[in-house]
Amino acid sequence: MVRIMTTHGAPNPDSPPTGSFAARLAASSRLRQSLLCVGLDPLPDRLPVGVGNGAAGAAAFCTAVVEATLDVAYAFKLNLGFYLAFGRTGIDALARVREAIPADVPAILDCKVGDIDSTAAAYAAGWFDAFGFDALTVNPYLGEDSLAPFLSYADRGVFVLCKTSNPGSGDFQDLTVVTQGGEPATVAETVARRAAEWQERYPATVGLVVGATYPAQLATIRGICPTQPILLPGVGAQGGDLDAAVRAGIDRDGGGLLASASRSIMFASSGADFAHVARSAAIATRDALNEARAATVATVAPSSEGR
Amino acid sequence: MVRIMTTHGAPNPDSPPTGSFAARLAASSRLRQSLLCVGLDPLPDRLPVGVGNGAAGAAAFCTAVVEATLDVAYAFKLNLGFYLAFGRTGIDALARVREAIPADVPAILDCKVGDIDSTAAAYAAGWFDAFGFDALTVNPYLGEDSLAPFLSYADRGVFVLCKTSNPGSGDFQDLTVVTQGGEPATVAETVARRAAEWQERYPATVGLVVGATYPAQLATIRGICPTQPILLPGVGAQGGDLDAAVRAGIDRDGGGLLASASRSIMFASSGADFAHVARSAAIATRDALNEARAATVATVAPSSEGR
Repeated sequence: MVRIMTTHGAPNPDSPPTGSFAARLAASSRLRQSLLCVGLDPLPDRLPVGVGNGAAGAAAFCTAVVEATLDVAYAFKLNLGFYLAFGRTGIDALARVREAIPADVPAILDCKVGDIDSTAAAYAAGWFDAFGFDALTVNPYLGEDSLAPFLSYADRGVFVLCKTSNPGSGDFQDLTVVTQGGEPATVAETVARRAAEWQERYPATVGLVVGATYPAQLATIRGICPTQPILLPGVGAQGGDLDAAVRAGIDRDGGGLLASASRSIMFASSGADFAHVARSAAIATRDALNEARAATVATVAPSSEGR
Repeated sequence: MVRIMTTHGAPNPDSPPTGSFAARLAASSRLRQSLLCVGLDPLPDRLPVGVGNGAAGAAAFCTAVVEATLDVAYAFKLNLGFYLAFGRTGIDALARVREAIPADVPAILDCKVGDIDSTAAAYAAGWFDAFGFDALTVNPYLGEDSLAPFLSYADRGVFVLCKTSNPGSGDFQDLTVVTQGGEPATVAETVARRAAEWQERYPATVGLVVGATYPAQLATIRGICPTQPILLPGVGAQGGDLDAAVRAGIDRDGGGLLASASRSIMFASSGADFAHVARSAAIATRDALNEARAATVATVAPSSEGR
């Protein structure tokens, strides 16, 4: 197993993080000069050679990918579904992978949670306190009171599902809403407007999820939420959209994007060299993102010298 | 601990259920003459005397409530959040409680899941195959393709969040959307219309979640989905709405409702007699639901003799 030496501190999930989630996110991005978030999704039937089988194999696999990409990815995202597919032992794997991520690198649980207030408080206790995640993806369908228990953690973050990357995302997210005296807006744009309000009341906690597959809608949503972090799934599998997505989604400071790639990095090799190849794939994606960023910044501010 | 003798078969989570979810649900309701679904939500700080602490105490508590109410409740609903609040051991408790529910009583996981297709397939493998739940609650925000992996299990069910019971449910669910040439509809009504279409393509698998707190909207949704089961949270805590909710939500056969009560039954006593008192509370709720049903049926069909 390839082991990349890093200079980062060891994880310490027992002590809560310091500073706001947005500040930790921005600091990690600056330190690593990266817009890349690596998704740790251990598909049960695609575990590479040499890591073992089942949930234990999944944990070993993901931990090796964390170690191999720790100076390239500025955040990691674990999708709950791929751990639960292993049954109850999958939750142990989830906890072990989270613990493998150092305290200065944000660990995001992609669980798309949304429930009424007392239940949401229970989820927050579980995912934030017991498991120590820095941020969660949340589903806005139940409304603001269902998200308040998460937003009330001043040192954690949420990414509100806004316009998702899948083909069927239009079924409800693209419906046009009748507004009182204002411009018509889609449901997704209405969610973005509310997320901008929530950011006022719960500073530095509220991001959004917008699929890289919809750059036009991403640009609109960035206009509504100019300073909030946007988690951008769908980058790895659709490299052709990368430039358009960065151009549409980047904030005024050339940041604010978590471009999330999972399979294109984790499964770049199914052999015993998977960690080394994953690192190479992560570096290539990071560099492509940085080139797209540099081109965007040059276009937006042609008179300014190199950032 | 009170132990109610039942004639039902022992649980066998290793073998898949037979028949459609809708058929199993209706059979259980008829057999028990009940519209009551008991929610098994073990709030960590409200475990009663004598069951022990932590996740093991939660499992013992919920298992005792299952045994005490097995001939009164026609289905059980476990809310994932209250198990996850215990951390990773909470998942073991979830599995143990599910296993305590016999095969002929539908076990519903209230996890409000919704994710893109490959991830949804992983969740389905986890919750349906590994944990053996009969049905899940699902969040429609990501659209039909995100639900298809669940709907494709012909012997399981989903309850699509439509109009939820919380005060903030109006934030997005009550938005009015523009329809092509039709009457304006709310987002919740649009979800109900789509759920009626899904039921055509995936027979006997699709139910809805509508809060007992919104009887007028419940009546509208029942009109859109005349034959689909409706999971009705919010009954226990708001007894005053029970009559109105049953009147609005019952189907033409006097069934089709899972009136879900949790705290009013589980926490009816915090003492060592909790299981006995939970049983009494469940019987009282079941009887109140049946009275409301009888009154509704008499009003709707005054010429028909006792059903």
